[in-house]
Amino acid sequence: MIDTPSSSPALHGQSIVEGACTITGGDIFYGHNPADGFKLAPAYRSATAADVAAATAAARAAAPILAATTGAQRGQLLRAIADRIDAARDTLVERAHLETALPRPRLTGEVARTSGQLRLFAALVEEGSWVDARIDQADPNRTPPKPDLRSMLRPLGPVAVFGASNFPLAFSVAGGDTASALAAGNPVIVKAHSAHPGTSELVGQIIAEAVQSLNLPAGVFALLFDAGYAIGAALVQHPAIRAVGFTGSFRGGKALLDLAAKRPDPIPVYAEMGSSNPVFLLPGALAERGSQIASGLHTSFTLGAGQFCTKPGVVFVPSLAETADFTNSLRAHTTAGPAFPLLTSGIASTYAKAIEQRSAFQTAKGATPTSGFCAQTTLLETTVAAFCDDPTLADEVFGPTTLLVHYSSIYQLQQAADALHGHLTATVHGTDQDLRENAALLKVLATKVGRIVINGFPTGVEVAHAMVHGGPWPATSDGRSTSVGTQAIYRFTRPVSYQSMPQWALPEELQDANPLGILRLVNGIHNSQPI
Amino acid sequence: MIDTPSSSPALHGQSIVEGACTITGGDIFYGHNPADGFKLAPAYRSATAADVAAATAAARAAAPILAATTGAQRGQLLRAIADRIDAARDTLVERAHLETALPRPRLTGEVARTSGQLRLFAALVEEGSWVDARIDQADPNRTPPKPDLRSMLRPLGPVAVFGASNFPLAFSVAGGDTASALAAGNPVIVKAHSAHPGTSELVGQIIAEAVQSLNLPAGVFALLFDAGYAIGAALVQHPAIRAVGFTGSFRGGKALLDLAAKRPDPIPVYAEMGSSNPVFLLPGALAERGSQIASGLHTSFTLGAGQFCTKPGVVFVPSLAETADFTNSLRAHTTAGPAFPLLTSGIASTYAKAIEQRSAFQTAKGATPTSGFCAQTTLLETTVAAFCDDPTLADEVFGPTTLLVHYSSIYQLQQAADALHGHLTATVHGTDQDLRENAALLKVLATKVGRIVINGFPTGVEVAHAMVHGGPWPATSDGRSTSVGTQAIYRFTRPVSYQSMPQWALPEELQDANPLGILRLVNGIHNSQPI
Repeated sequence: MIDTPSSSPALHGQSIVEGACTITGGDIFYGHNPADGFKLAPAYRSATAADVAAATAAARAAAPILAATTGAQRGQLLRAIADRIDAARDTLVERAHLETALPRPRLTGEVARTSGQLRLFAALVEEGSWVDARIDQADPNRTPPKPDLRSMLRPLGPVAVFGASNFPLAFSVAGGDTASALAAGNPVIVKAHSAHPGTSELVGQIIAEAVQSLNLPAGVFALLFDAGYAIGAALVQHPAIRAVGFTGSFRGGKALLDLAAKRPDPIPVYAEMGSSNPVFLLPGALAERGSQIASGLHTSFTLGAGQFCTKPGVVFVPSLAETADFTNSLRAHTTAGPAFPLLTSGIASTYAKAIEQRSAFQTAKGATPTSGFCAQTTLLETTVAAFCDDPTLADEVFGPTTLLVHYSSIYQLQQAADALHGHLTATVHGTDQDLRENAALLKVLATKVGRIVINGFPTGVEVAHAMVHGGPWPATSDGRSTSVGTQAIYRFTRPVSYQSMPQWALPEELQDANPLGILRLVNGIHNSQPI
Repeated sequence: MIDTPSSSPALHGQSIVEGACTITGGDIFYGHNPADGFKLAPAYRSATAADVAAATAAARAAAPILAATTGAQRGQLLRAIADRIDAARDTLVERAHLETALPRPRLTGEVARTSGQLRLFAALVEEGSWVDARIDQADPNRTPPKPDLRSMLRPLGPVAVFGASNFPLAFSVAGGDTASALAAGNPVIVKAHSAHPGTSELVGQIIAEAVQSLNLPAGVFALLFDAGYAIGAALVQHPAIRAVGFTGSFRGGKALLDLAAKRPDPIPVYAEMGSSNPVFLLPGALAERGSQIASGLHTSFTLGAGQFCTKPGVVFVPSLAETADFTNSLRAHTTAGPAFPLLTSGIASTYAKAIEQRSAFQTAKGATPTSGFCAQTTLLETTVAAFCDDPTLADEVFGPTTLLVHYSSIYQLQQAADALHGHLTATVHGTDQDLRENAALLKVLATKVGRIVINGFPTGVEVAHAMVHGGPWPATSDGRSTSVGTQAIYRFTRPVSYQSMPQWALPEELQDANPLGILRLVNGIHNSQPI
């Protein structure tokens, strides 16, 4: 059965290449409504090898033109996309709601996050100092004479972006990867996630229109659909592609990383691959506000049906005897909670299987699922000893579940922290005294993650200058990077040095007059002055 | 026959692990004097698997201690190494001269470059702003409340550094990779290049002494010798190693990159692998100062016997009829030049083979070699058409040779530039009019290299803030990085974000009071003020 939503916007079910819908295509696939499991019209056609060839050729041709734009021009582009996204808010929310079953208020917030993120990058490149301009002036009297050297960050070239299943807007077609790659001056080819093709097409149309409205080459952006993996693999292996941004599973990210490493010319892959975001609950905090932490934790691990990269999936908590109030409260929250529709039938069945494998650890369950891709919220509990014996317990389980790991001593807690592999985040709840007594724990955790959170919850990833949404392997393929916040722009750049270049041939950022008024490192001193 | 230099310093022929010479070892090897080909005492013993285990265990234990040092403390370490290197200058120059046959003045300059580089990184970390500290203050009144977020760059952990053959000091044991990795707070394990073990041991002793003098853990530094490749491979695959720095051949760098990519947890490899550093000579410049360019080019391509990563190996020059003065002058310089001892017998035989393969293109040769690993300077010439037909002609040939590629039109020149793969540098000689007429060429070249040089020569890599000694594949394994200059420190760091962390638990760089007075990005604005 295929639902044809009555309020359906103009969807063509085709990829967007060189600014227009393609007219041929391969295998057909559909979005689905997770609430009932039915297919959603229209049918989507997979892109073809010819589409990949056309999109990459157009991106390659557009690259030098986009690289030569000013920050102000790229800011215009990002703002044009943001404005159009805000204007289409209700349409986007409706389609995304149909395709993901995520609540409308959450999706409304995600629209704002997406346009806000585009505007943050616009502001960054309009201001301009992000390029890390450096000038070392010549000294002809030195032996040997010292040359004039100037460097700044420049774009890498066309970037392939893979949309994520769990954020149909903020980590998809016009999400953080696209925003940061465009901001840096790179054309973008998005491989849409097959779970929300309609939302992807709507946003793809918006970007293509914005590109056209500013008379930029159509090759600045393309959107490719695919029922399978061939198009994504072809993109990652294509000579024109210079970097890859991905948010998704470990298996998916690792596959792309391996393809990129086997290229004749390996390229960087920024894959955000998953994390169980360990939480460490210290005794003083639990004594002081155990039920409040239980409530916050329940909200956090069921937010978005537990389908957040930063979902707290492992929670270290003192032994049951000491923390009965907290644990009972969390069990009660879990039991009282609804069933949640998950994003896809694949995610739902993977979740069911993972819960089945952990059946020995179940201590509370929410409402029984009735329809669609629904999942039952499940609280799991075990001991540190059992946790350390079975490394698979540290694996991410996408969906509304978390694992309490009861510890009997701070020494055990420290050992567990030492043994952690990389995660996106680590969270500690403690009173000031707890934290001071566990300063060593804080130091260890800072070596294991991209972001350490004190007395909060890891879900809710602020789009900010100081955000790091990254972390050591296997949380990401490249722990030196972040996919959220303004630092994400650095992923798609490289430094270029100009030696004894005449003023007229230098980028404005490096000219003596400093026409953009940006902050520069001149002979080792930061300032915004002309020379 | 084995030379035992009379002025020989105390060399033990053993690796340095945990601050002391090892007492066992594997296969024996020797340095050689390239001037006569004879072995040099003492015998060197390869490190063992047990040495790798001990060095990595010590580095892992030292990592959190070094990571917790202040920039001032790491500056002390770097200056202690630099001072000891300067004090040992004459000993280092003598031993390096024996092992490389590079001229003493060049090696004296290289000592100064090495200690100067260490002091530049000392100054960088003493000042402290390099950490890119970012603070986004909380806004509890926002919906949802905005948390306090602070981020800065932190060290990765133990780094494996591979010494280069061609710079026995500045790109070896205490070279740029070691200096930048230590500056960032990472322990370093160096795999010495087998061509200059004595120089390596002397510098290794110096670093170990400096580490000890400051009461830092001995695991901060280790030096491993190896006759073959096993120790280097074991290091790159060892779980404790978090990044790799390498300068050498494409084959060597690619092998390490592949090993790192196959790890259960892939790590970054910064391999500087070679480049033929194309030079573009434009007609006006040649008419104005053809013989001066010929002289400069000859000096540049024979500097260090042509064994520079930045040697100009391919030179595009107008057709012979237009540039007879330049070409004749370059031929005459070549014919008048001496034979050069190369660094190793392997480099000498590879050079001889490459010249033999290019025998059809030889137009001038220098003096005939008589002894040791000596090589004959050779000028090669061909046409753009022939050059484009045979991609191997763009490959780096290590040694005193360069290839003139005659072009008959600017269109041909632009085509050749478009077809280039990545190089460390590109150089253009032109009058202002030449350059303005070829502005498109300059733009293309900036996308192909790490550094573009106008009216100079690519040899002579300034250690500066704005230097980029890197470049797109295959010049380096990671074109987003530089191995020379202060930006090299970023290779061995990753950003860490602290959310709602109490002041006392924050690194000084992120505390409200800004006790270090560093430049920070506070709520999007750069300043050096306390909050």
